Amino acid sequence: MATELVDVATGRKPADLVVRGGRWVNVYSGEIVPDTDIAISGGRFAYCGPDASHTIGERTKVVEAQGRYLVPGLCDAHMHVESGMVTVTEFCRAVIPHGTTSMFIDPHEIANVLGLPGVRLMHDEALAMPINVHVQMPSCVPSAPGLENPGAVLTVKDVEEAMGWENIIGLGEVMNFPGVAANDPVMAGEIAATMRAGRTVGGHYASPDLGPAFHGYVAGGPEDDHEGTRAEDAIARVRQGMRAMLRLGSAWYDVAAQVKAVTESGLDPRNFILCTDDSHSGTLVEEGHMDRVVRHAIRQGLKPVTAIQMATLNTAQHFRLERELGSIAPGRLADFLIVSDLAEMVIDDVYARGVLLASKGRLAIDIPAYDYPASAKNTVRLGKTLAAADFDIAAPAGANEARVRVIGVIENQAPTRALEADLAVENGQVAMDRANDVCQIALVERHRGTGGVTNAFVSGFGYTQDCAIASSVAHDSHHIIVVGTNKQDMALAANRLAEVGGGVVLYSKGRELALVEMPIAGLMSDERAEIVAAKAHRLVEAMRSVGCTLNNAYMQHSLLALVVIPELRISDIGLVDVRTFEKVELFV
Amino acid sequence: MATELVDVATGRKPADLVVRGGRWVNVYSGEIVPDTDIAISGGRFAYCGPDASHTIGERTKVVEAQGRYLVPGLCDAHMHVESGMVTVTEFCRAVIPHGTTSMFIDPHEIANVLGLPGVRLMHDEALAMPINVHVQMPSCVPSAPGLENPGAVLTVKDVEEAMGWENIIGLGEVMNFPGVAANDPVMAGEIAATMRAGRTVGGHYASPDLGPAFHGYVAGGPEDDHEGTRAEDAIARVRQGMRAMLRLGSAWYDVAAQVKAVTESGLDPRNFILCTDDSHSGTLVEEGHMDRVVRHAIRQGLKPVTAIQMATLNTAQHFRLERELGSIAPGRLADFLIVSDLAEMVIDDVYARGVLLASKGRLAIDIPAYDYPASAKNTVRLGKTLAAADFDIAAPAGANEARVRVIGVIENQAPTRALEADLAVENGQVAMDRANDVCQIALVERHRGTGGVTNAFVSGFGYTQDCAIASSVAHDSHHIIVVGTNKQDMALAANRLAEVGGGVVLYSKGRELALVEMPIAGLMSDERAEIVAAKAHRLVEAMRSVGCTLNNAYMQHSLLALVVIPELRISDIGLVDVRTFEKVELFV
Repeated sequence: MATELVDVATGRKPADLVVRGGRWVNVYSGEIVPDTDIAISGGRFAYCGPDASHTIGERTKVVEAQGRYLVPGLCDAHMHVESGMVTVTEFCRAVIPHGTTSMFIDPHEIANVLGLPGVRLMHDEALAMPINVHVQMPSCVPSAPGLENPGAVLTVKDVEEAMGWENIIGLGEVMNFPGVAANDPVMAGEIAATMRAGRTVGGHYASPDLGPAFHGYVAGGPEDDHEGTRAEDAIARVRQGMRAMLRLGSAWYDVAAQVKAVTESGLDPRNFILCTDDSHSGTLVEEGHMDRVVRHAIRQGLKPVTAIQMATLNTAQHFRLERELGSIAPGRLADFLIVSDLAEMVIDDVYARGVLLASKGRLAIDIPAYDYPASAKNTVRLGKTLAAADFDIAAPAGANEARVRVIGVIENQAPTRALEADLAVENGQVAMDRANDVCQIALVERHRGTGGVTNAFVSGFGYTQDCAIASSVAHDSHHIIVVGTNKQDMALAANRLAEVGGGVVLYSKGRELALVEMPIAGLMSDERAEIVAAKAHRLVEAMRSVGCTLNNAYMQHSLLALVVIPELRISDIGLVDVRTFEKVELFV
Repeated sequence: MATELVDVATGRKPADLVVRGGRWVNVYSGEIVPDTDIAISGGRFAYCGPDASHTIGERTKVVEAQGRYLVPGLCDAHMHVESGMVTVTEFCRAVIPHGTTSMFIDPHEIANVLGLPGVRLMHDEALAMPINVHVQMPSCVPSAPGLENPGAVLTVKDVEEAMGWENIIGLGEVMNFPGVAANDPVMAGEIAATMRAGRTVGGHYASPDLGPAFHGYVAGGPEDDHEGTRAEDAIARVRQGMRAMLRLGSAWYDVAAQVKAVTESGLDPRNFILCTDDSHSGTLVEEGHMDRVVRHAIRQGLKPVTAIQMATLNTAQHFRLERELGSIAPGRLADFLIVSDLAEMVIDDVYARGVLLASKGRLAIDIPAYDYPASAKNTVRLGKTLAAADFDIAAPAGANEARVRVIGVIENQAPTRALEADLAVENGQVAMDRANDVCQIALVERHRGTGGVTNAFVSGFGYTQDCAIASSVAHDSHHIIVVGTNKQDMALAANRLAEVGGGVVLYSKGRELALVEMPIAGLMSDERAEIVAAKAHRLVEAMRSVGCTLNNAYMQHSLLALVVIPELRISDIGLVDVRTFEKVELFV
């Protein structure tokens, strides 16, 4: 294959495609090199230089760049496809027109539902894409061993096995940062297996503590981190030899503060990388993907070529893929963009492996849907049809009032508050208190059909109507979280999800107001991103119609079982105080 | 091992060594971070940060840096140990006090004598060193197939085998650049084997032509090049995604011109790397090694931390060894220097793997000599004792005068001139012309004992006395080159080398004036670098005493069989015109 590139570069064989007269955004030299031609053969760059005339033959397709910029295809260094609620295929369809040609995906969510076979499904789907989709092996399934029971567990042995797969690029974010610093054998074993395989260990240090706990985490081996939020976080990570991954997701805004490490403190930008982590389908459809992140980074004061390095070469080097991608240079996959305005990242054309994939924001090719097997589509198993009574919370015998723990949602923040409330007892059951915005939350077991329901209370959504919202996206164990003011609606909502194989649904007064079906693992739709975005939009409207005024209410909903972020969460084992990592009783 | 580092970083186990209060030359962030402590355990950095008190136990050795700089150990990205005429062990002894803690060596010379077993010997010696000595598998043995017969030949299969060895880091400089651009199957096969092994392909594009021939070479896969001499060479290489290796050897001065690509043209310095390529023992003893290169680079106007990046992190990343070396950061080998003046690179102490190896320019440890087997020491096989008559050059029958080709040495340049001269015929033999500085040169076969002697003429050394200099260092096939004004001395010199197993010797009027024994493959001494340097110095003096005024005369001597650099060279097959890559006759 290299021999073919040599033949083309020297003019002995004609190129497949030549782009003439572009401005080469050279991520190696940090220059914009005018008057550059590029010649492509077999999906790779064969020649990049001032004059590719000698590579043009009768059948060579010639494209005139007319002075526009030639930019390497953009890389998303860490992301979860499941956050878009769509398949890898549909995610690619949505992001290719935005210039993304390489994604490093951590299928952590499906792993919690389907385990290693789930990772394999997304791994195989990823391989079928016309862009580079590399898979990080999820490291923390379950996220909080002992505090939850997900649909599957990944072991050190699973990691060792996955490291031999063609398309595994490293270990996904090691979220159990206290475990790393405590030398938890699963964490240490997974990291060691990844290092032995010569692959990259992804990090996730979600704490502002930069003392010994941080240093212990670093010494354990993680090589990047996207959980920093302050400039000092980025500086601390880069000094330790980690890559600071700056994140701009649908709900993460961590670039502006941290990029000051470069624009104000003058750090070498080479160890900074851009990523999205989580993008909702609405963001993909309405705002973009890595083009949005690069544009945002430029607006913070980075030179365009520096921002582009952070989404191309820096990423490729980090994942030891520099010979494959991340630049416009001989031998690399011919993934590139023709851009008419660099600072604004106006992308006219998107090529990957030398093929035009999108033009003027529209796909130029078809990507056939990937066929998920039935085993991936029947994952919502309740074991029974739920009734309103399954959500009854019996008061202590003889009580007229009960003091209970309440999960307090904080707007625009992932942590919750551990609140308490005194609630009335009616007919032996603890009653909700709509006036004070206290309604019920239930964690419905859905992986093994145990029929288990954990009931508790939540505050902060502001529901004013009889209603219930159920979601089988319920990080990270992905049971079903139902939040409701009415037990009948709660039962209807949960049962409906069992019927459609998962998703999100909103019932009010016995009527279904919105539904986003996600039959794949109860996490992903098999429909187009724009359809999913439209349905998700209807869900938001419906939530508003029943009184919820919270920003990003659905995301808050789906995170209430995330038993790794303080303070109070719900899981299939009960209420969990994430300050102490202990199960606590509902009644105080 | 990582678990031990975690224990130390978090304060659960004491460090072996703590250095307190240094200025951390941080090659990741590009900063100098004051008031930094580093803690080391098991030869690796466990903690690097503001306060390592919690890592200090009863048995922890504590060193006070007192505000001096903590610099990562320096890396020489491409070099030939054989150029120092000493073993790997002695080379390390010489360079460790100069701060070199990682070397990437290409044992190309021994490979030409002993083949793969010779590479293996140096590979194994390298593994025994207290610093990191990684071996590049030689790619071009012989350098010029068909134009010379070295002691051994390396094949694609050999390269495939070597890529499985523990200490092989990549493919050594691919010197056959026309072969790469022509898709020579040996070159293409070796490069492909290296890429399959995930290792780095070293380059060597020794031509000012930056047209299609250059682009063909790049497309073939080489990832670095140290043969550039002009700023435009460096720029062209970096733009193509290669690393520009800037070389400051004993006789190579390629940093100053090329570093202008950074200091004047503003290129991103991350893809620039410093190396020495060839250092004579005299340079090591008198001037230094990578400290000399870094100091020189700083004097060209690089920020100290940028110059240091070019000799540490940039090198480590290039060879995919970033997790092992090239920085002071957790998890990496604890290779570092305590430096009291950064711009002048005044190195007080040198540590590797956490052990103090040198202090104030002197070794603090002993490195036992490596025992080379007899097979490596008996490589000069002439097949017979030479006599003066073996150097007779019979004139064409009946001629009174003969027009002959003469190799013209050019001072301070590697290329030669293809001269011609009319020489007298005496007793049927063509005579030398000392008045016009034309003396004899002979290539004496020494690998297979064929008794073969190729006789020709050379001009430019300026010998005024009866004398002969013989050397078994005779790039790249390493037969014996004898240059002399007297055939008796020529015979004595060659025979003497056979007696001592190789080296360089100077005879004048039947007397030995200087000798540097190099019994290992006829290329390397087994003595200390300072002794070799002293002997080499005596050789230079002796050459002067017989009339030679040429700068670097011995080096010129040893390159006269290098049948890849124009114009006229000698080999065991005869005279070679390197403009046409053809054998030519002595008589015009």
